[in-house]
Amino acid sequence: MQTTTYTVTGMTCSHCVNAVSTEVGQIPGVTGVQVDLATGSVTVTSEQALDDSAVRAAVDEAGYELAGRA
Amino acid sequence: MQTTTYTVTGMTCSHCVNAVSTEVGQIPGVTGVQVDLATGSVTVTSEQALDDSAVRAAVDEAGYELAGRA
Repeated sequence: MQTTTYTVTGMTCSHCVNAVSTEVGQIPGVTGVQVDLATGSVTVTSEQALDDSAVRAAVDEAGYELAGRA
Repeated sequence: MQTTTYTVTGMTCSHCVNAVSTEVGQIPGVTGVQVDLATGSVTVTSEQALDDSAVRAAVDEAGYELAGRA
C-alpha cells in the first residue's frame, strides 16, 4: 500500500472536493482519496506506486489543476 | 410570466451554481433560473408570482443562503 500527497489548485467548495475525489478514485489501483479543501492537499492511497500523469489527468478531468506532489 | 431576482450568498463555483439552479428549478411553477456567480444574483422566471419562502427553502436545501430580493 502506497500513500502519495498532491497539491491541487482551484477547489473552492465541497462539490469541488467531491469532483476530485470521484475522478481520482476511479484510477485503477486507487483505494482511497482524502481531500483537504483549505490546503488543496489530496492524499491518495493506492495498491502500487501511482503514475503522477494519471493523477494529473484525473484532476484535470474534474476541472482542477495538479500543482505537484505536496 | 413573472421574473424575480434574488441575492444568494455562499456560491463559489459552477457546482454551486448548478446546485442552486437545480433546487430552485424544482419549485412548482418555475420555468427558468439564471445564476450570476460573480454577483450571487439569481433570476427566477415563473408562471405566477413566487413565494419567497419557497425560494428561500430551495436555496437552503442546496446549501446556500438567500440574502433577499436583489
